[in-house]
Amino acid sequence: MDVFDSDGHEQVVFCQDRDTGLKAIIGIYSTALGPALGGTRFYPYESEEAALADVLKLSRGMAYKNAMAGLDLGGGKAVIWGDPAKLKSEALLRAYGRFVDSLRGRYYTACDVGTYVQDMDVVARETRYATGRSVEHGGAGDSSVLTAWGVFQGMRAAAEHTWGAPSLAGRTVGVAGLGKVGKYLAGHLLDDGATVVATDVNESALAWASATHPQIELVADTDTLIASDIDVYAPCALGGALNDDTVPVLRARVVTGGANNQLAHSGISKLLEDRGILYTPDYVVNAGGVIQVADEIHGFNFERAKLRATGIFETTRRLLQLAVDEGVPPAVAADRLAERRMAEVGRLRSIYLG
Amino acid sequence: MDVFDSDGHEQVVFCQDRDTGLKAIIGIYSTALGPALGGTRFYPYESEEAALADVLKLSRGMAYKNAMAGLDLGGGKAVIWGDPAKLKSEALLRAYGRFVDSLRGRYYTACDVGTYVQDMDVVARETRYATGRSVEHGGAGDSSVLTAWGVFQGMRAAAEHTWGAPSLAGRTVGVAGLGKVGKYLAGHLLDDGATVVATDVNESALAWASATHPQIELVADTDTLIASDIDVYAPCALGGALNDDTVPVLRARVVTGGANNQLAHSGISKLLEDRGILYTPDYVVNAGGVIQVADEIHGFNFERAKLRATGIFETTRRLLQLAVDEGVPPAVAADRLAERRMAEVGRLRSIYLG
Repeated sequence: MDVFDSDGHEQVVFCQDRDTGLKAIIGIYSTALGPALGGTRFYPYESEEAALADVLKLSRGMAYKNAMAGLDLGGGKAVIWGDPAKLKSEALLRAYGRFVDSLRGRYYTACDVGTYVQDMDVVARETRYATGRSVEHGGAGDSSVLTAWGVFQGMRAAAEHTWGAPSLAGRTVGVAGLGKVGKYLAGHLLDDGATVVATDVNESALAWASATHPQIELVADTDTLIASDIDVYAPCALGGALNDDTVPVLRARVVTGGANNQLAHSGISKLLEDRGILYTPDYVVNAGGVIQVADEIHGFNFERAKLRATGIFETTRRLLQLAVDEGVPPAVAADRLAERRMAEVGRLRSIYLG
Repeated sequence: MDVFDSDGHEQVVFCQDRDTGLKAIIGIYSTALGPALGGTRFYPYESEEAALADVLKLSRGMAYKNAMAGLDLGGGKAVIWGDPAKLKSEALLRAYGRFVDSLRGRYYTACDVGTYVQDMDVVARETRYATGRSVEHGGAGDSSVLTAWGVFQGMRAAAEHTWGAPSLAGRTVGVAGLGKVGKYLAGHLLDDGATVVATDVNESALAWASATHPQIELVADTDTLIASDIDVYAPCALGGALNDDTVPVLRARVVTGGANNQLAHSGISKLLEDRGILYTPDYVVNAGGVIQVADEIHGFNFERAKLRATGIFETTRRLLQLAVDEGVPPAVAADRLAERRMAEVGRLRSIYLG
């Protein structure tokens, strides 16, 4: 696999520290809008090639996500290649922090699969370019709060586009996955007057739902959920929720959820359109989390971050309108809007200010 | 080809700028002794893999060279992948300069194959981490002056080791290649009282020799030169001068020259030893050039740089003694000395100074 691919990543930085066993790759897709922000995935990839492929894909995705979130941040991501259970140590995390620091602010890191706020606290001892820290260390805390809030805002925009009013009142929403994001989302939906049907593979999540929100109707599994009489489907668990098996049987008219990479492949976008199902691109509606950690850069302020996450309503509205205007699926419209923002706002640096 | 190889490079940075067509790889082998210094090669490699292999090899070599030159500099190198005749432009060189700058002094660049002082002047408009600039822009100028001086010093040490006195007076030295380094070297040898036999494929170089130093005996080609009755062989042209064909017929007892990569493969070191030929490792004796450009970092001072290049006499002496003491070929001794310096001096940073 080549680094200089057609996607055109700006910078890809391989970092190695023999003594601690650190092997990290930092991918910077674009800094047109500002320093690249994206989490660090700590994962035992099968090969260097697999690690590289993942960081290239993820860093590109972050550029689009951050652009659509209206942030003054470019897109980046990092992977640490290895088994965190065996390899993670103070020295390794700090060695990684020094390499993050070597880019002097062109890349800000955060948590991702295999890294936690406690790890970012350690990374931050070597660099000030680490977000996703613990609250005690100036961090923003649990980012699923604003992720769920942003998904709810995106869903309101989809409801307005479909039924005329920006509300889920009177609608039935199927929430697949009552993890952190799904839980908070269910709460917002109930507050808004929606009926919630939900499922989860985790017993404790179901117990939480029964105890906290007994009005939630729990179903056995996702297959049952998507075949139910729901108006909106909210995938909030694993990726690939929308695939060649699920889309044909889906009864919802709207899909808006917190999960990443909801489309199993790019052809699904067309399949959804053919079935008349409105899909709000995952990276647009689930950007509340990155909005939250991005806010740490300037000293975290929850109200400011929440205001920005509320903006996901307007952003989703705008992209759904663009999709209609340009006759393309919303996923394509989102990519276009992100690319336009990177080009138009990125170009402004040509106006000299010193 | 994998980046995370067993050699253990510290950092490898892929840089791309779509608009100018820049595809550069900066290899940082080690910064144990200080910022990594090494030139930028602009070359139309067959593939990304070939470009990567070259930068990994070259940056590792620079770490050893800079360590043995006694510099407070680590080892790095960069390649720009493409045909300089088609691709080189102000914008591309400046885009490259911005990426050099993004490392904020962890890597200093300089000229190499395909890049010239004028190019470094352009690169330097985007970063202060560019050496090898023109004299008018604070550069050190023609680095072959001190390269030749250093080679002469290494040869003096080899003469002392072999014949007891640190002088080439009364010896016959065969200089293969009367390019910039060979010319200056021939001058030093004649001044020292040596007899010089030389060859070059270039007519103008031969004309220069006849006109300037009529006492130099010119021979038809390198094959003739190495079969001549010479005491010292000084390869000052292409790499691979010492190979399975040349070493068996070589009549010299000492090999000291300005060319890079003189050993065609690592087995040649043993072959030289078996024939009783003393070889002073190329990267040790030809370090005068990098000493010269390194001096630019602090504002170029020719006398200071020359003093340091004169130190190649002592360094060569020390490594030849170590080779005897440890019963290894000089090439192995040089690698050991370089590695020891990187470990011992690099470790000193653990003494906290703020």
